[in-house]
Amino acid sequence: MTDIALLGFGTVGSGVAEVIDDRREYIKKRLGDEVRVKYILDLRDFPGSRYESRIVHDYGIILNDPDVRVVAEMMGGVHPAADFSRAALEAGKSVVTSNKAVVADCGAELLELARKRGVRYLFEASVGGGIPVVRPMTDDLAENEITKISGILNGTTNFILSKMESEGASFPDALAEAQRLGYAEADPTADVEGYDAARKILILAALAWGKLFPLEAVETLGIRSLTRADVEAAASEGYRVKLVATAEKLANGKIALSVSPRRVPSGTVLASTDGVFNAVRITGSVTGDVLFYGRGAGKLPTAGAVVSDIIDALERKSFAPPALFWGKGTASDVSSAGDLYLSVLD
Amino acid sequence: MTDIALLGFGTVGSGVAEVIDDRREYIKKRLGDEVRVKYILDLRDFPGSRYESRIVHDYGIILNDPDVRVVAEMMGGVHPAADFSRAALEAGKSVVTSNKAVVADCGAELLELARKRGVRYLFEASVGGGIPVVRPMTDDLAENEITKISGILNGTTNFILSKMESEGASFPDALAEAQRLGYAEADPTADVEGYDAARKILILAALAWGKLFPLEAVETLGIRSLTRADVEAAASEGYRVKLVATAEKLANGKIALSVSPRRVPSGTVLASTDGVFNAVRITGSVTGDVLFYGRGAGKLPTAGAVVSDIIDALERKSFAPPALFWGKGTASDVSSAGDLYLSVLD
Repeated sequence: MTDIALLGFGTVGSGVAEVIDDRREYIKKRLGDEVRVKYILDLRDFPGSRYESRIVHDYGIILNDPDVRVVAEMMGGVHPAADFSRAALEAGKSVVTSNKAVVADCGAELLELARKRGVRYLFEASVGGGIPVVRPMTDDLAENEITKISGILNGTTNFILSKMESEGASFPDALAEAQRLGYAEADPTADVEGYDAARKILILAALAWGKLFPLEAVETLGIRSLTRADVEAAASEGYRVKLVATAEKLANGKIALSVSPRRVPSGTVLASTDGVFNAVRITGSVTGDVLFYGRGAGKLPTAGAVVSDIIDALERKSFAPPALFWGKGTASDVSSAGDLYLSVLD
Repeated sequence: MTDIALLGFGTVGSGVAEVIDDRREYIKKRLGDEVRVKYILDLRDFPGSRYESRIVHDYGIILNDPDVRVVAEMMGGVHPAADFSRAALEAGKSVVTSNKAVVADCGAELLELARKRGVRYLFEASVGGGIPVVRPMTDDLAENEITKISGILNGTTNFILSKMESEGASFPDALAEAQRLGYAEADPTADVEGYDAARKILILAALAWGKLFPLEAVETLGIRSLTRADVEAAASEGYRVKLVATAEKLANGKIALSVSPRRVPSGTVLASTDGVFNAVRITGSVTGDVLFYGRGAGKLPTAGAVVSDIIDALERKSFAPPALFWGKGTASDVSSAGDLYLSVLD
């Protein structure tokens, strides 16, 4: 029996508990041992839930239990999630997370700490929800020198843009619809201003080039001032408007990072990425263009990515390939991406 | 220094030697040890090539050299490639391959042999060329019960279909063009009749459900009798014609396997897969639809997939997850896919 703990029992956390239950037999067969969710840390109590007896409010119980081998952090926000992750790694436990804010802010430090302690820090769910992209970049595309990454990484804005295009909705109406359906939060700033996508492209850039840049390094333009006329004008010229995050290694060795509404040629795979789906295109020296597509958010897809990380952490206990060594990206490593607002993506 | 051997020094084999040279520093950093191509088995001599001194004609030299840890088989055809692979595994060497015919015919036996000998048998390059799909199915989507796989898995037919659609070419003219450009072989039967795609879907189905079926289990229809009128009629109704391979687990537990020209709704990611690109869509119980897209063939993309397998074989020396245990699929496990010729893919 291998014990794990979940931090946060919201949408993703409860999804992880479900997937581990549903796939108990598979996981046992794969790891040769059963995986049990021993503790769930949450501020709430969840009376009547089948997981009620495992809820704890004191993180010390988890930290001090030597049987807990993996901590899955799905709390959201940087604090205290980052501190809890640090403490778990210090205690010799692997940490897996769906929390892009922590990875984008503290990933370099947490990966280094994991390496020192001989455990793992994994974050497949932090970019692209259910789409496998972090592990493929680490393992499958490892033989490539990556030159460029282009992604539709935010489902909320993609849903809004699809609505504006297909139904002629205005931005405020499409946003209201997204909020009604639960795709957008009450405060949609992080999504519509592009900061969510910016954090995700920072993580992918770090995987590609070993440097984690601060959020300010991404030239970020959101979709708030986009009009129906913009979308219609693009359509009439054979383009679809998408919020695209890009990271590119230029000939001078510098990195250009951007998030901006772009015109994407219709009929391409990126242009066909609609609604809550996400896509990431990676250009490598050996493989050429590779693209990963799937559900960028949602309870089960995101939970599935967390579970794949739990399995990985238990299988490869102290794996630390080069893609998981990140230095600090500084201003001198960055080049301007230029004015990309509504420019054509190639 | 870790020694490996290449079997076959054609397009893919020479690509593997190149990628290993170009990425020497990366591989050394990743594995903590340099990887050297010690032998290259080929019938030819390659005088003047920088690899000339490593060419051998006697496979015994490779088999009997205990320093050779991984054998990369890129010979094509089932014999003697399968026998050579078996002998290497028996000798305790891991084998990686780009050879779909061997995997589709003998994969179950070779995986079992690898497991018994505590080594690896890996075949990322056998399906989808440079697209990561075998390892993602084994590692990233492991927590899913897979229900359906749909793929555009043959670049030659996809190139021909793109030509017929975009330029109004007839099938014979488009085929001739593909042959002129080196995308189609002089005898294009395996491609245009759908057998190449059928072998690939057999491999993906085995990864999903643990059973390797014989080629006859795939209801295979090629594109030879497809006319421009078929393509135009589809286009006028909002579809693109693609040669699609599908594998589906039905409610009764049986597997339906097919390769057929299908109508794919325009604007979807699969419909946007053009020319020599391939795409594989996998539907899982947890993750929903995930799609992998990229170059399905070509020297460097395929070589890159082989190199990623070489790295994996050296990193996870005796890894044998459930996806790599294959039984024999029999007639009683199969259900008819029905008449799918030019039917709409959903």
